Amino acid sequence: MAAETNQRIVLARRPSGLPTAEDFRIEQAPIPTPSVGEVLLKIQYLSLDPYMRGRMSAAKSYAKPVEVGAVMQGGTVSAVVHSQHPDFRVGDVVLSYSGWQSFALSDGTGLRKLDPAAAPVTTALGVLGMPGFTAYAGLLTIGKPKPGETVVVAAASGAVGSAVGQIARIKGARAVGIAGGADKCAFVRDELGFDAALDHRSADFPAQLAAACPDGIDVYFENVGGPIWNAVFSLLNDFARVPVCGRIANYNDDTAPPTGPDRLPGLMHDVLRKSLLIRGFIQREFADQQPEFYREAAAWIADGRLRYREDIVEGLTNAPAAFIGLLQGHNFGKLIVKLT
Amino acid sequence: MAAETNQRIVLARRPSGLPTAEDFRIEQAPIPTPSVGEVLLKIQYLSLDPYMRGRMSAAKSYAKPVEVGAVMQGGTVSAVVHSQHPDFRVGDVVLSYSGWQSFALSDGTGLRKLDPAAAPVTTALGVLGMPGFTAYAGLLTIGKPKPGETVVVAAASGAVGSAVGQIARIKGARAVGIAGGADKCAFVRDELGFDAALDHRSADFPAQLAAACPDGIDVYFENVGGPIWNAVFSLLNDFARVPVCGRIANYNDDTAPPTGPDRLPGLMHDVLRKSLLIRGFIQREFADQQPEFYREAAAWIADGRLRYREDIVEGLTNAPAAFIGLLQGHNFGKLIVKLT
Repeated sequence: MAAETNQRIVLARRPSGLPTAEDFRIEQAPIPTPSVGEVLLKIQYLSLDPYMRGRMSAAKSYAKPVEVGAVMQGGTVSAVVHSQHPDFRVGDVVLSYSGWQSFALSDGTGLRKLDPAAAPVTTALGVLGMPGFTAYAGLLTIGKPKPGETVVVAAASGAVGSAVGQIARIKGARAVGIAGGADKCAFVRDELGFDAALDHRSADFPAQLAAACPDGIDVYFENVGGPIWNAVFSLLNDFARVPVCGRIANYNDDTAPPTGPDRLPGLMHDVLRKSLLIRGFIQREFADQQPEFYREAAAWIADGRLRYREDIVEGLTNAPAAFIGLLQGHNFGKLIVKLT
Repeated sequence: MAAETNQRIVLARRPSGLPTAEDFRIEQAPIPTPSVGEVLLKIQYLSLDPYMRGRMSAAKSYAKPVEVGAVMQGGTVSAVVHSQHPDFRVGDVVLSYSGWQSFALSDGTGLRKLDPAAAPVTTALGVLGMPGFTAYAGLLTIGKPKPGETVVVAAASGAVGSAVGQIARIKGARAVGIAGGADKCAFVRDELGFDAALDHRSADFPAQLAAACPDGIDVYFENVGGPIWNAVFSLLNDFARVPVCGRIANYNDDTAPPTGPDRLPGLMHDVLRKSLLIRGFIQREFADQQPEFYREAAAWIADGRLRYREDIVEGLTNAPAAFIGLLQGHNFGKLIVKLT
């Protein structure tokens, strides 16, 4: 058996449009040794999330891009395998931001110890992690659903969307989910308990959406972008709120300028005549709400009101293909790579 | 001398694009007689405002359209000339919503008595009325300028824009105004005290705006719509706020669909990556702030920190032409018709 090395996946080049396998490169490196004050982490699970597409491009954004040749970034669940840090012991399991690799050093900054007895550690990457908190903070702080109102969310079987709809229902609102395909829609409706689930691939999707929202839409949680926008927007009620946390359908748009007609004047017309609120956000803006989120979400999971589904892929070398599939909606639930 | 009649201007037909004189019709009617509980108002001043263009169209909006054949709506300052109402006496001057006519009945609903000794009564239609309150509520409740931030507003010599910039400065922010022509820019800069005033007709307007906003734009008070949007939007800072109260440049857009490119994806991209807030509003949503507004604005006027300019047109029959000019930016200050 070969000596263990640090396997890592680096950005080989910046993608044009949808990333391809050639945009990534697998490298082997020596396993690093922690200095005093550091720990060596062995990564167990890697989270794959749509935002990573943004980091692959050089365009200005809220976060710095990954440099070409550098390890792809990402949230991870790791085990401490060597500690020179007084706060961590070998065997501790932590949430870290170690990226697409099998080992990483940390000086402890940003590490959060996980209790495997309290919840499966993978939930720290999903429903009890960044995606779940994105849903919680965006829905409750910006969307502010009132009892009886209608909340619409797309990618409703995904990590963020599934939490958005379930939290909306916990708050007394109606939840209408949009997903791709009959299986995902059945899951959203039957397992997650949304009031309705619609397949955006249906030819009559706009009519289905209108029928599922007889009182209009009060909150549209925008986490996908793309072609469902027009159908949703025409149904927004006066004073509707649109938290915007992602535009996965548009992340690969950098190859061609959008053709007409120009929908901006129509959007601003609706913003004015309906007194709409549109607000982009990144969950870390609301970091002070995290303790309350952990407390509430854990209780909702315990009493069965907040469910989740994970899509686990085995092996770090399969991460690029899984990520490319994520951008095309091929995953079904929170996409996580299990390192083997 | 002919017996006095009620002269009124009615909507003759729905305009296509920019209204023309033929869209209005002048009518004579008998002066009505108040019943018990009513007053007869003789209108002294009629406010002309961009929102009236919306009322001329049948399209769904936050307010019902004016019916074809009905009197054009509008805010007015009126004198009570006959009273059958216990709360009003002949000679009282009131703010009313009597529309484009010389006489009107009222049962007192919505009337506000004005004190001509406290402020010129015309200010109830401008800086101390709906336009001033629109500026106050939208800027402070949605825009929330912080000291040192940069606030940009267009139509800066107009009723809303002039108040936006001056209130921004009162709150310690920098005010950059956009106006049409050298005279209006000089007024905005030299009389109103904006930090900068730019002519949107200049060929290098985008470069001028960038130079006037070296730290970017934190609040863009959107009261015009139209072509300055692109120049402004590229300068918005992270977490910038965009209160939207008007789109005068687009009010006549109903004749042709907008051509490409489609700017909606780019807008949503910026909303997300910059965590922008875009919020349409109508001032009456914030009606509970009106008493505080009257108090604060009156004090600011008294100490010279809130200045205003009125553009008074004589004669009700000149209202249509003045209104058409307003939609083209021909007015200079708050446009008011003085009934003679």
